[in-house]
Amino acid sequence: MLYFIGLGLADVDDITVKGLRIIKNCKEVYLETYTTILQVDQKTLEEYLGISIIAADRELVELSADKILTNARDYDIAFLVGGDPLSATTHTDLILRAVELNIPYKVIHNASIMNAIGSCGLQLYHFGETVSIVFWTDTWRPTSFCEKIVANRRRGLHTLCLLDIKIKEQDEASYMKKTKTYLPPRFMTTSQAASQILESAKELQVEDIINDKTLCVGAARIGWSDEKFITTTLRRMADEVDLGRPLHSLVIAGQLHPLEIDYLKIHTIESSFDQLALEHNQSLSH
Amino acid sequence: MLYFIGLGLADVDDITVKGLRIIKNCKEVYLETYTTILQVDQKTLEEYLGISIIAADRELVELSADKILTNARDYDIAFLVGGDPLSATTHTDLILRAVELNIPYKVIHNASIMNAIGSCGLQLYHFGETVSIVFWTDTWRPTSFCEKIVANRRRGLHTLCLLDIKIKEQDEASYMKKTKTYLPPRFMTTSQAASQILESAKELQVEDIINDKTLCVGAARIGWSDEKFITTTLRRMADEVDLGRPLHSLVIAGQLHPLEIDYLKIHTIESSFDQLALEHNQSLSH
Repeated sequence: MLYFIGLGLADVDDITVKGLRIIKNCKEVYLETYTTILQVDQKTLEEYLGISIIAADRELVELSADKILTNARDYDIAFLVGGDPLSATTHTDLILRAVELNIPYKVIHNASIMNAIGSCGLQLYHFGETVSIVFWTDTWRPTSFCEKIVANRRRGLHTLCLLDIKIKEQDEASYMKKTKTYLPPRFMTTSQAASQILESAKELQVEDIINDKTLCVGAARIGWSDEKFITTTLRRMADEVDLGRPLHSLVIAGQLHPLEIDYLKIHTIESSFDQLALEHNQSLSH
Repeated sequence: MLYFIGLGLADVDDITVKGLRIIKNCKEVYLETYTTILQVDQKTLEEYLGISIIAADRELVELSADKILTNARDYDIAFLVGGDPLSATTHTDLILRAVELNIPYKVIHNASIMNAIGSCGLQLYHFGETVSIVFWTDTWRPTSFCEKIVANRRRGLHTLCLLDIKIKEQDEASYMKKTKTYLPPRFMTTSQAASQILESAKELQVEDIINDKTLCVGAARIGWSDEKFITTTLRRMADEVDLGRPLHSLVIAGQLHPLEIDYLKIHTIESSFDQLALEHNQSLSH
């Protein structure tokens, strides 16, 4: 049997009791390392689970998929993933291959950013399409994420923005060499994301919908012991806010309901938040 | 401290290790019973957790909120919720009151239908706004959910439909009496939901966007041992599909990507699914 087990958001003990029990009976345990960012390192996880783990980056998973799958015919194998297992397409791909080969599989769900973002105080039912914001380069400045935020806002919906993570980014010089060398990992901050959104809005001429005064919630390390939320305008998020260590996510608010306004007040840095929320809502009703 | 602890989707051991540890140190443990539907009953849960639980329906929570909150000043109290704790507004309300009274609180996240629906094979990133479908009565037939599905489909997005649950529905005759009596609980099926969607589409004259041939995925008991998915057209979902015991959810497909089409094939009852998926996608591109 091939198990896909979600590790949840932060700590070793965010795993479910069921997930933990299954892992203890698995002969091989892989940890997906290219989307999984936990509060703990692999060694701590190994000690907690009482097993040794095979770190699996994208390359290893793609190269060893057949081996993993064939072995899962003979014994139990677990594939650990931060959050919930079904967020990245690579796992979908593995499942599809397992089905093709008639290998049974099971998914053990857990919390992920896609539902835990409810902690920020905005109702999950009022979210539209989720967007991913990638680091711009000098020559590549996609703005399609902004169009999606605009479409959500036009319908009064909030937008969860997942921010870019660059892990194992190849050093440019190393392209020429035999041995690959990598740049240090980079994680987009809510400030960088807010900047790119404001620049995109200008470029796309949608500043009636997204502008300096649009309200947003910066979220850092959701589910971690030092989880942090800040509600402010996009301009102040871009210029003044530092939420500290990764991972960051950003929510662009749609139409705010009274209960949501009350909740956002818990972590806003704006002194006259009621007035800002009123203007924010009015800007959508024109 | 007031803890809001997600129980996950189905079994007692879907709770996280962290959640279980916290519960064992709580002096009072409430179980929210008006949105929580688990595979197990309260007694099994109590035996597993090794504690006694106070069942809390909406009335009790609203009436006892102040008492619960005041007690949380003196000792640890847990409030258990099926899925993830932040899906229903009642919990948001409790958190707001706790903040007002300066009572510390903590949320222990878990999987919920909002992210576990990824198991159906459609990518979470391609979902638009979630809708709730309520049981129609002879005199009350709201269709606003259908407008939202249309808006999602126009943007190529999938729609998660949460289906109505009627618990503690008052017996009409009992309105006159002193002692309330209740009807047996009712849970909307994917078949009932598909019927209401098709009728709504006719009424709203949006049959170019939603019609008999629109593809959908019925999901039953996600995360349970007998979880089941069926992909078919809305018409067949309405007329032929029986997914068994509750809870059911329904997903109306937007634009299908090749990987999603492959995944849906795992559980479709359609013999010529590729052709149907092609027509489904083309119907959106006019």
